[in-house]
Amino acid sequence: MNTQVLMQAANQARGLAIDAVHKAGIGHLGLPLGCAEIGAALFGDALSHNPSAPRWINRDRFVLSAGHGSMFLYAWLHLSGYELSLEDIRQFRQLHSKTPGHPEFHETEGVECTTGPLGQGVGNAVGMAASLKIAEATYNTAEHAIFDSRVVCLAGDGCLQEGVAMEASSFAGHNKLDNLILIYDSNDVTLDAQAEETQSEDTAARYEAMGFETETIDGHDIEKFLSSFKRLRRSANGKPKLLIVKTVVGKGIQEVEGTWKAHGEGGAKFAESARKSLGLPGETFYVSEEVRTAFKARKAALEASYAKWQKTFQAWQSSNPQLAKQLKEAEADQRPDATTILSWIPAFEKGKKMATRAAAGDVLQPVAAKLPRLNTGSADLFGSTKNYIKDAGEFTPDNLTGRNIRYGIREHAMGAITNGFAYDGLWIASGATFLTFSDYMRPSIRLAALSKLPVFHFFTHDSVGVGEDGPTHQPVETTSALRLIPDLDVIRPADGEETAASVAQAISRTDGPTALILSRQNLPDLDVASADERRKGTLKGGYVLRKEQGSLEGVVIATGSEVHVALEAAEKLGKGFRVVSLPSFEIFDRQPQDYRESVLPSSCTRRVAIEAGVSGLWFRYVGGAGKVIGIDRFGLSAPGDLVLKHLGMHADKVVETMQGI
Amino acid sequence: MNTQVLMQAANQARGLAIDAVHKAGIGHLGLPLGCAEIGAALFGDALSHNPSAPRWINRDRFVLSAGHGSMFLYAWLHLSGYELSLEDIRQFRQLHSKTPGHPEFHETEGVECTTGPLGQGVGNAVGMAASLKIAEATYNTAEHAIFDSRVVCLAGDGCLQEGVAMEASSFAGHNKLDNLILIYDSNDVTLDAQAEETQSEDTAARYEAMGFETETIDGHDIEKFLSSFKRLRRSANGKPKLLIVKTVVGKGIQEVEGTWKAHGEGGAKFAESARKSLGLPGETFYVSEEVRTAFKARKAALEASYAKWQKTFQAWQSSNPQLAKQLKEAEADQRPDATTILSWIPAFEKGKKMATRAAAGDVLQPVAAKLPRLNTGSADLFGSTKNYIKDAGEFTPDNLTGRNIRYGIREHAMGAITNGFAYDGLWIASGATFLTFSDYMRPSIRLAALSKLPVFHFFTHDSVGVGEDGPTHQPVETTSALRLIPDLDVIRPADGEETAASVAQAISRTDGPTALILSRQNLPDLDVASADERRKGTLKGGYVLRKEQGSLEGVVIATGSEVHVALEAAEKLGKGFRVVSLPSFEIFDRQPQDYRESVLPSSCTRRVAIEAGVSGLWFRYVGGAGKVIGIDRFGLSAPGDLVLKHLGMHADKVVETMQGI
Repeated sequence: MNTQVLMQAANQARGLAIDAVHKAGIGHLGLPLGCAEIGAALFGDALSHNPSAPRWINRDRFVLSAGHGSMFLYAWLHLSGYELSLEDIRQFRQLHSKTPGHPEFHETEGVECTTGPLGQGVGNAVGMAASLKIAEATYNTAEHAIFDSRVVCLAGDGCLQEGVAMEASSFAGHNKLDNLILIYDSNDVTLDAQAEETQSEDTAARYEAMGFETETIDGHDIEKFLSSFKRLRRSANGKPKLLIVKTVVGKGIQEVEGTWKAHGEGGAKFAESARKSLGLPGETFYVSEEVRTAFKARKAALEASYAKWQKTFQAWQSSNPQLAKQLKEAEADQRPDATTILSWIPAFEKGKKMATRAAAGDVLQPVAAKLPRLNTGSADLFGSTKNYIKDAGEFTPDNLTGRNIRYGIREHAMGAITNGFAYDGLWIASGATFLTFSDYMRPSIRLAALSKLPVFHFFTHDSVGVGEDGPTHQPVETTSALRLIPDLDVIRPADGEETAASVAQAISRTDGPTALILSRQNLPDLDVASADERRKGTLKGGYVLRKEQGSLEGVVIATGSEVHVALEAAEKLGKGFRVVSLPSFEIFDRQPQDYRESVLPSSCTRRVAIEAGVSGLWFRYVGGAGKVIGIDRFGLSAPGDLVLKHLGMHADKVVETMQGI
Repeated sequence: MNTQVLMQAANQARGLAIDAVHKAGIGHLGLPLGCAEIGAALFGDALSHNPSAPRWINRDRFVLSAGHGSMFLYAWLHLSGYELSLEDIRQFRQLHSKTPGHPEFHETEGVECTTGPLGQGVGNAVGMAASLKIAEATYNTAEHAIFDSRVVCLAGDGCLQEGVAMEASSFAGHNKLDNLILIYDSNDVTLDAQAEETQSEDTAARYEAMGFETETIDGHDIEKFLSSFKRLRRSANGKPKLLIVKTVVGKGIQEVEGTWKAHGEGGAKFAESARKSLGLPGETFYVSEEVRTAFKARKAALEASYAKWQKTFQAWQSSNPQLAKQLKEAEADQRPDATTILSWIPAFEKGKKMATRAAAGDVLQPVAAKLPRLNTGSADLFGSTKNYIKDAGEFTPDNLTGRNIRYGIREHAMGAITNGFAYDGLWIASGATFLTFSDYMRPSIRLAALSKLPVFHFFTHDSVGVGEDGPTHQPVETTSALRLIPDLDVIRPADGEETAASVAQAISRTDGPTALILSRQNLPDLDVASADERRKGTLKGGYVLRKEQGSLEGVVIATGSEVHVALEAAEKLGKGFRVVSLPSFEIFDRQPQDYRESVLPSSCTRRVAIEAGVSGLWFRYVGGAGKVIGIDRFGLSAPGDLVLKHLGMHADKVVETMQGI
């Protein structure tokens, strides 16, 4: 596409953004207008993708980390020929439209990930870049390179001020992800003010210190952008790229451009004069024939490239049937179901005490052996989180197929990077840290849930049972806080067999994330029920672990490390008392009403729940007459068993409470 | 103290750490041993503090950001003569000891803040540095400088990998906090591995890019450290300092020193040989007479300096009685009670619709005028969070007494920095962002609660009522997730008068943090009750807003933007229906049983709660027979009123639900 047409396209994309925001009465104009030439250059020329095959595995991934500039993405996806009509753009920010206020994965073809919460997109892009590096190392052969695409991420000052972006960038530099091109829209403006009021650093120097190659250019000079971008695209020097584009925010609306007033919808009221000065006709949502024709030609050219790649791919496929099968399954995200996965996991030694973190690590080994797509990682805590895949190597620039990823002490980036893996879809990603520090990555977990990403995490050291490390390291509210996130499955198993089922369930789930809540301390094997009963029961989220004899006098409900306490209490209480293990509220709530009723009969109102954490969410399960034994305060630094006892986590407390009902 | 004695002291501090960790069987030796010379130099010579007056306002603040190295702090506080005996050290990590696993504010004299969750201490230190800068600008006069101390923060690789530390450092550089000396214990090791496995950046260059002055030295050379430290201490060049000390982790235990195995308690088993090679006698917890004597002399010298400062202070006090009164109140954290604060706030115009975020901004003005100690800030959202103090200026290097702080798009740092203000205690700090993004600062909020810090935050855009920005910006689980944090007060007011009381309550609270949950959208004035009733009721956490006539047929409970929906429903339901506004679960739960019973009579089991968020925590208030109308899913991008209606937040739904009970 020639520069003249690209410049026209840029102005027409500006017009689409102005008209959409003007019509909705709300939205962000700063980026779509300021980066219009970048959009034209990328979508009109530089990006290698295929609007007719939006999930083509060798496409360049384009991530709009500055998600508030969603009209940028919608305009360029529309012009490029994705399934996004002018009518969709007219419906910008309306109920059930394909053009929500911030880009949402699953809602719009061509949207690679949900963005808006700042900094997350940078982490997602780093995850995608790692994903593609592993794909190259796994699938490319000396004869055929079926993967050679890049990850392009557009971010603003807001994204780069966020810690998660810093952590992820540091990870990218350390791991030499030179297939990442981070475009920094440096417009000297943030939402609230001129950027100089909150930042004064030398961003290029900061990124160079982290191992990036950087270049600074005029973001409105299409030719310059294209030459720089193409050079960086080719530069396989082990350095991720930071392309700093100096732009005028809101360029095209003379009344506000270059100031913070241009960031949001403030400029929309000048729509008419702006349209005029941009050389656009009175017609709103205007795209010229010339631009349409040029983008049609671009689309055809992209399809031709794609067809050429298909030939390479077919040749590769014929030569590598085993790899091809594996890739096909990955593309379709075909996973074995939980029962199949469980069949790979031997039963634990009967009667052996063990921490569920250790059990999870044991379970991981045979599963990982069967599932080469699975990788895992830890935020500098493999030794404690125990989720290291043995004999599977570590992910490093020299060993890209190593399946253990050292995320460093960067929990938030770990969350965003594992999400990036999941958006990309080729690998099954998982992370690990202490449960308390899941708070550091909570914004990423929320996005995983919102985007229905099949990632999972090993959150260990799950209660005051942590002991001596004290209240800073003892979660009390954290498990419940995770349970509050819609579409996140939280599973807190009580012993080895429940852990086996929890891991199997997490890995088999394809429509959302899972948090595994695991103990630091040893727990008894709950062999009052068979291994099979415990596994199957866990897959249902909750089950009767100890059935009463005779008529039902009361139910004790517990999760994780408190289930054995509940059992001990039931023994003391007598034959008529049932123990329900409830490892996952979410999964249990999804069971049919009659199953739930069979586990927690509504006729039995004498219920006590015990969990080493805040009590608030338990009242739903114990009902109006029931009681909850929880820990509604912070913990204490002392040996774990002492702390648990001191805070009421013992059988006598359960007995006494039950007897008081 | 001469270098010989300092070196002896360093080895004896090593011995204390080894013995304490060995006795407890758990703990971290890497830092206490690796940084022993740093400790000797700081506490034996360089720090200006006074163990006899631990909260002396002009002390150097020492923050151990790498809180796992707590035995470093305990050993040096003990030697320095703080209220921390050898017996306390023997009780390391035991129940109710003064020496918990990680340093805890309030538990141990001389501990400036609770650390352990990595990176937080760096943010706290930045907050303290800002606090001291403001103190200097406010209280020092041309004649008398009563503030000239420094903030010294010791951090490791773990801290500096964390995003929160990066955000805070960037803030420090931008704001030219040259009274901050960040000591980076660069020992090339993290908990899990050699640091080179997760990082490869040039930290000095990265910090220079953020406006820091940096120097790299051998951390075991006491004389070099002292000369560098003292130079940096004096260097008032507008640059915060990064002093990189290269150390050997776990130095003194030859079997593990210099490797990641030295980070934790791994070396403790070599206690005996280590003690020998350090030249320590067989006696455990050994301190030589020579070292004792030297530290006594140091303490006396510090007391003499303090006495000298007292003279300056008294002279200053006589010349500036008004300022002195203000400072005295600040030191004692004397705050007006909520009722007094409310007396400063005029009633809102009757019948006027307004967003509670706007109401909070209005309320803030007269209160801020009366309370010069109060400052506020926003994570680049003043225009949206509305908490700007008018005519109070902005905090900048040239205007240190400006009371509006632009934190940038750095929510997590804002959380840690406001905590730093609160630890320091001279100023009342508050921050602001969108409620959804409180997740980014959740680890800091947790620590504020754990340390009982009187900070508060304006969290606006509090539900799907946000509208078009869509689910990424619409909290549904966030209010409840904050409610789960022990000792955090969460208040979600329903109109202007409730907002007035909420702000007053937050500012008057001295024993913990408060989250104000505020609406983006306009809400009606609930003048069914008087302004006074609404204010007083809010101070009790919950109250009867609409009293039934005749016998009580049912109760509708709601918070914030759903209270007017509850009122509308009660109107439709009839005279017998009560409406309870429950802005704060925590405050309500603290009321006497009879008050709570008078608001929610246990005899009335026909209860419906409505809140635009997840329902889980409400079952406790509605009881077994009651129903909850919540939003147990993510939101939608569309105009806010449409989304609220679409997701069931309307009076008809309440009526129908109540009628179904």
